[in-house]
Amino acid sequence: MLTNLRISHDELKKRRRTVAEELGQRKLDALVLFKPPSIFYLTNFAYVTTERPIALVLTSHDELAVFLPRLELEHAEETALIDRVEMYEEYPGLRPPMAIFAEVLKKMGLSKARIGVESDGYGRISGYEGPALSEVMPDAIMSNHANLVEYLRHCKSPEEIALIKESARWSNLAHRLLQTKVRAGSLEMEISISASQEASTAMIQTLGEGYEPRSWVMMGVTTGFRGQIGPNSAFPHAFMKNLKLRKGDNLVTYARTFVWGYNSELERTMFVGEPSMEQKKYFDLVCRLQNTALEAIKPGHPCCEVDRAARAFYEDNGLTKYWRHHVGHSLGLEIHEAPYLDIGNEWVMKPGMVFSVEPGIFVPGLGGFRHSDTVLVTENGIEMLTYYPRDLESLICSD
Amino acid sequence: MLTNLRISHDELKKRRRTVAEELGQRKLDALVLFKPPSIFYLTNFAYVTTERPIALVLTSHDELAVFLPRLELEHAEETALIDRVEMYEEYPGLRPPMAIFAEVLKKMGLSKARIGVESDGYGRISGYEGPALSEVMPDAIMSNHANLVEYLRHCKSPEEIALIKESARWSNLAHRLLQTKVRAGSLEMEISISASQEASTAMIQTLGEGYEPRSWVMMGVTTGFRGQIGPNSAFPHAFMKNLKLRKGDNLVTYARTFVWGYNSELERTMFVGEPSMEQKKYFDLVCRLQNTALEAIKPGHPCCEVDRAARAFYEDNGLTKYWRHHVGHSLGLEIHEAPYLDIGNEWVMKPGMVFSVEPGIFVPGLGGFRHSDTVLVTENGIEMLTYYPRDLESLICSD
Repeated sequence: MLTNLRISHDELKKRRRTVAEELGQRKLDALVLFKPPSIFYLTNFAYVTTERPIALVLTSHDELAVFLPRLELEHAEETALIDRVEMYEEYPGLRPPMAIFAEVLKKMGLSKARIGVESDGYGRISGYEGPALSEVMPDAIMSNHANLVEYLRHCKSPEEIALIKESARWSNLAHRLLQTKVRAGSLEMEISISASQEASTAMIQTLGEGYEPRSWVMMGVTTGFRGQIGPNSAFPHAFMKNLKLRKGDNLVTYARTFVWGYNSELERTMFVGEPSMEQKKYFDLVCRLQNTALEAIKPGHPCCEVDRAARAFYEDNGLTKYWRHHVGHSLGLEIHEAPYLDIGNEWVMKPGMVFSVEPGIFVPGLGGFRHSDTVLVTENGIEMLTYYPRDLESLICSD
Repeated sequence: MLTNLRISHDELKKRRRTVAEELGQRKLDALVLFKPPSIFYLTNFAYVTTERPIALVLTSHDELAVFLPRLELEHAEETALIDRVEMYEEYPGLRPPMAIFAEVLKKMGLSKARIGVESDGYGRISGYEGPALSEVMPDAIMSNHANLVEYLRHCKSPEEIALIKESARWSNLAHRLLQTKVRAGSLEMEISISASQEASTAMIQTLGEGYEPRSWVMMGVTTGFRGQIGPNSAFPHAFMKNLKLRKGDNLVTYARTFVWGYNSELERTMFVGEPSMEQKKYFDLVCRLQNTALEAIKPGHPCCEVDRAARAFYEDNGLTKYWRHHVGHSLGLEIHEAPYLDIGNEWVMKPGMVFSVEPGIFVPGLGGFRHSDTVLVTENGIEMLTYYPRDLESLICSD
């Protein structure tokens, strides 16, 4: 079994110690988390999010308890690193889970504690309704510290980077298969599904029983177009429409793989057959635009500098009317995370941060032009974690 | 093009009128929604949820405005039924989107209005941070009405039921293909991916360009085991682990298809080769348990009666230690919705409600036993929307 395709218990313990220290700094007795990525980050516990609240409590004494519904008990005990499990029967059940959770917190000596929370209760998920945590814990002093774990996730560790690289490797295969299947006349979903299936099969046969996506929604590798075919590719976030590919179409693609909860992002602009002069012009511009953004990523500099460099490029080349979004976002456990390569984000880029770099040119009636690469900030500059070719010749598909 | 695989504009207009009337009843001037299923329900607008807030405003005069980031403008205009679009540039951007949204609300004459909200701001999604709506709208009178649209979604219309039935049809095919691929020695993901791919291909070739999942995460039909193989099937919400199927294994399956945003649920207990006497015993019990629940679904009766009938069955048959969760949940636009077939849910079952019916028996060390069917409440009783065979003989796979 491939034992390195996961986050080690040593790393989980280190993360917990960091959170416990941060609790001290913030003068908090405990932290209560409700968000699945935060809970996974500290325990390796991945679960299906439903109407049934799940919470994690970490005290400043480094005690960690998970509060969960009956149906997750054995699953958590087998897959998660936790000290203590507390349970309720079911939601809605005969007593509100949040009231039972308050009793757990009391039992842990936290009834009058200073508690940092990610949100004041579970949120309205899958129809869940219930009291705020502050309602059932009237004597505790609660304050929002949603940023505590989130900010720790900004800089990725070597183990996290290894998982993101593993993800990028299989997305690369999927994208290669996708490109070989492009033909005028094919249906979007046929090509997407078949390339996804072949890449997933190759991945699981290579990695064997050691591979766990730890992600419920994805099965292995997925690749496709998300509806970005021909003029529809001018919508940066189009939806799959099962369009037919036509000769001369612009295509904007994606490929994504989850490995132990972590993902990477790879997107390319391709053409069905030889592109027109106009398509070539925008393709050339978007490559130069992406290079401009890549060159602006420098550890120690604020994120906004990258977006500013890109905005200047749009301006200088008369492209502002084709601008639709910022240069990129962080990613790791989530598909989009903070910080962002955005004109409004002053946070400093640090070694270990992982960004998508994907400025685009979207020409109504013609199509979209965008490559997205996953990029690691290093001590001295950047390392490209995705490596699919970006040049025009490599991205012209046979028609 | 198949034009009936969607929600018609007539139905959207009817939904809006109902919400506007409900606003009158609740003495509200406007409703502000942030949740994607609520926004889709009133506009047909499906979009990728990111760090960029999207909101919908519906006034008691039936004016409907969508507030969105620049990158969604053309996409919304082409795919959604909306009267008015208001835009901000980007998140984080140079001004908080929520401040710009407050200006939009003021422009709509709502600065001192009574506004029902689904949540007091966008929530912490994909790293988003921003002020509460009440902070930027200090003169408005805000109150939580998250249940307004949610409760309207409880009873499905004929158009919605048609989409759920279309979903069930393709899930049935996927599940049939999954079953034919089961062999001792195969890897979980190989079978799952290949059955999903073949079913998806058949579906899109049948439905052609008229098919739109309107769901970003799924590509066509997905089917598989979610890790519920052998003893691991005793975790009701296991995760995919790419396990190897072994002779004699219990399998718990699933198949799911999104059609214009709507889904159905189909799950079966199967065996790799001839089951043992013990496996047969629990299989027989779980079929009787599911029938007990199905028989208890009666329009005009409270949801809790169904769960109570199931609980009595566990009790009477010495199965309480193998109980893990309630009988089922509603579904439609979401995978889990309220109301629930749960001992704590007093709401009355009404014609048009669609429930999963899936009581399970989970025997540690041996495996899980659960069928899940999607069931419509009718005027007189129920209609089964999923129709895959449930008997033992049909569910023994060749080993």
